[in-house]
Amino acid sequence: MIKIFMSKLFLIFFSATISMMKKYNITCPSGFPEFSPAEERVRQNWLAVIRGVFEKNGFLPVETPLVEREENLLAKGGNPKEMYVLKRVQDDDDTSHSGNALRFDHTVPLALYVARHLNELAFPFRRYSIGPVLRGERAQKGRFRQFDQCDIDMIGSGELSLLNDALVAVVIVQLFEQLNIGEFFVRINNRKILTGFFENLNIKSKDISAVMMIVDDLEKIGATKVLENLVKLGVKKDLAQEILNFTEISGTNEEIFKRLEQIKGGELFTEGVQDLKEVFSALSAMNVPENRVKLDLSIARGLDYYTGTVYETILTGYEGLGSICSGGRYDDLAEVFTGKKLPGVGISIGLTRLLSQLFDAKIIEPERSSPTEVLIITTSPDFMSNALEIGAKIRGMGFCTENYVEDKKLGKQFDYANKLGIPVCVVMGESEVEKGTVQIKNMTSGEQTEVTLEQLEKGLKNILK
Amino acid sequence: MIKIFMSKLFLIFFSATISMMKKYNITCPSGFPEFSPAEERVRQNWLAVIRGVFEKNGFLPVETPLVEREENLLAKGGNPKEMYVLKRVQDDDDTSHSGNALRFDHTVPLALYVARHLNELAFPFRRYSIGPVLRGERAQKGRFRQFDQCDIDMIGSGELSLLNDALVAVVIVQLFEQLNIGEFFVRINNRKILTGFFENLNIKSKDISAVMMIVDDLEKIGATKVLENLVKLGVKKDLAQEILNFTEISGTNEEIFKRLEQIKGGELFTEGVQDLKEVFSALSAMNVPENRVKLDLSIARGLDYYTGTVYETILTGYEGLGSICSGGRYDDLAEVFTGKKLPGVGISIGLTRLLSQLFDAKIIEPERSSPTEVLIITTSPDFMSNALEIGAKIRGMGFCTENYVEDKKLGKQFDYANKLGIPVCVVMGESEVEKGTVQIKNMTSGEQTEVTLEQLEKGLKNILK
Repeated sequence: MIKIFMSKLFLIFFSATISMMKKYNITCPSGFPEFSPAEERVRQNWLAVIRGVFEKNGFLPVETPLVEREENLLAKGGNPKEMYVLKRVQDDDDTSHSGNALRFDHTVPLALYVARHLNELAFPFRRYSIGPVLRGERAQKGRFRQFDQCDIDMIGSGELSLLNDALVAVVIVQLFEQLNIGEFFVRINNRKILTGFFENLNIKSKDISAVMMIVDDLEKIGATKVLENLVKLGVKKDLAQEILNFTEISGTNEEIFKRLEQIKGGELFTEGVQDLKEVFSALSAMNVPENRVKLDLSIARGLDYYTGTVYETILTGYEGLGSICSGGRYDDLAEVFTGKKLPGVGISIGLTRLLSQLFDAKIIEPERSSPTEVLIITTSPDFMSNALEIGAKIRGMGFCTENYVEDKKLGKQFDYANKLGIPVCVVMGESEVEKGTVQIKNMTSGEQTEVTLEQLEKGLKNILK
Repeated sequence: MIKIFMSKLFLIFFSATISMMKKYNITCPSGFPEFSPAEERVRQNWLAVIRGVFEKNGFLPVETPLVEREENLLAKGGNPKEMYVLKRVQDDDDTSHSGNALRFDHTVPLALYVARHLNELAFPFRRYSIGPVLRGERAQKGRFRQFDQCDIDMIGSGELSLLNDALVAVVIVQLFEQLNIGEFFVRINNRKILTGFFENLNIKSKDISAVMMIVDDLEKIGATKVLENLVKLGVKKDLAQEILNFTEISGTNEEIFKRLEQIKGGELFTEGVQDLKEVFSALSAMNVPENRVKLDLSIARGLDYYTGTVYETILTGYEGLGSICSGGRYDDLAEVFTGKKLPGVGISIGLTRLLSQLFDAKIIEPERSSPTEVLIITTSPDFMSNALEIGAKIRGMGFCTENYVEDKKLGKQFDYANKLGIPVCVVMGESEVEKGTVQIKNMTSGEQTEVTLEQLEKGLKNILK
């Protein structure tokens, strides 16, 4: 009764406050979402795995600023329509802020990094970068304006061995084996094969990238539509069919290589086949299972700057997600900044997008939101000092440990543990403190056992390990 | 000779290219520096330790967007002169980009986060946030426009037990014990004590924060200057001396508490002393050594929003660095957004600034830039396939492993290892491949031993573990 009265009083007070308050739109700005703590815990685990695999393979950590000169970003293909330029509210006095913009990927910052440190770097330069990039795209489901990218690249000075292309594929395989989200495979192709094949069919040079883009959509739009689009582009119907047949060649890697040998292509075509053979033979030297790396003549990667090997990664059974990790070989990282030929090969994972897809598809189901394994609660604040001491001890045993220190009823304290998904409560009351014991409550089973302080560590391990 | 000729040719070509090239200013924009890979490795280790300690103490990970609504940032004390507002180059068509700005700390985003999720959160809500914030300050040595902050906060709904203030101090102690950069201690005070003492001296309310700011500078500017500044503010000379004497009270925590008992203060003063006693008695219940947590009446933390406990952390012998981790208790996190009382207590580490100070002062000396522990090199590309196989094996043993796959002389390959500080090279030549052995070269001692593949793991462990 008193409670109801109080809460009514509170409501009146609250409404009065509300009406005096300026209204703020407290939602996240469009395109800038946030993960829940439970999802964020998954993200942190992923970041640790990804970073670990990159380091296991000898990539150096490079963290470039979020902000670069606008002019430099535009020099390497930045889309001015999507780039966020920085302004200060009052920017009359200090010109050192002007002309800066937020990075939209890790590749342009890498080009600038290499240009800045050209003479100090050991080549081939292998680096990884993990962090947010920002694009002012139209916000829509699954498309964010801020998202994490996890990139590795190997950069050669003047030249770069093709074996690096195999090493990159190995990193993808290690990554998704460790991330452990199910069966997957890496599709590998070489754009020289496609370009060479198209050239040999007398497709005009200016149309080759358009043809590449159309072919790249095969899985998404289907064979009929690919044919249609090719014809629309001006490719003769029989040639279009030949292109389609070519990209649809299937079989084991060995079978596809055999088919490729029978096809008469030009010099570039032959070079591409040779390159791809070298990559696959390196993969087999490293004992990468054939079901993890598949030659696939239909992948092209729409982006223009790839010139050799291209990669896509497919989660078996979830082909609809598209490629979950992609990349390729390029000839020119930073000529515009350095005047030097710096070929490279690299891959990128769009972490934010991928995780949000995996959460949506329930391929990953985040568990509890708190890292706490053990919550210490007391029946009365009188035992708080004992509880704090025990809490420090349990933390010392290596468990993530939290003391509940507010003066609330036991039920409220258990509610707190349940809301956060904390698996174990250690309960201390008068009788326990007198006897030098504690109650261990398994929050999943509901089971409760009284143990001495000597038995405590073992008791916790029984539940938590 | 040919080499010289070639390099001249190259120079001519290079100059020609240069002269045709547009010149780009490729330096980092002012205030947006980057760490070297060796420094970045230190930073990554620190981040892992910091995150680990936060989770060990049951803080939930919360990662808010880099971007918030400008209006919301300004509502909680954002300095409009330093805030970076986002614009797109062409921003006529899509208004959803306007009115957004980059976060300048983690506190306002926390306030917004709590406001957004008020009804889902379990209170007290403990969260950590680690990541970059951006401020358009004047760039100067040690002041950056983008820097990482690592924050924890505990937020109560309506009220929050004082014991949380002790738990926060424990986190600071754990943090710097694990970061292991030398002796340190946490200075603790309570602003109620200072405010109460000043009120009792009849300092006008409007002057109290100014007095607080002056006293806070004691260590930086010295006693004489503090007296001068107090008198300048209008405080009578004898009162100024009394204030100075008060803040200079020293001794063990127990001695200082005894002195405080002898001082006649007002109600607020007594409350502050009581609060601080409760915090220190909780610290001793948790067995925090007295040399780690020191009552210090001179610290106030300039910022106005602290209302109770305040913390600073001092690295012994490097007092000149100032506080390396600070924070305090505040009454109001998000009333402007929620209409509710949400008191909190928290701390923040300015990671970028701190690390850059520690590097400059050589308190931390970054070691090698590459994570690679073992580099596999060959005397000829003929043995590459064997080398790749061995590389995959060594990586499987758990070592960070890299194959050098470029076709370069042995000397160049060793240069590469030395430049990156890689500690071990595994060398494979004709005789090794024939015999099924490899050479292990300890790059530090120069020692080289031939081992069979069976002895390889042990041989590597001998050097690396």
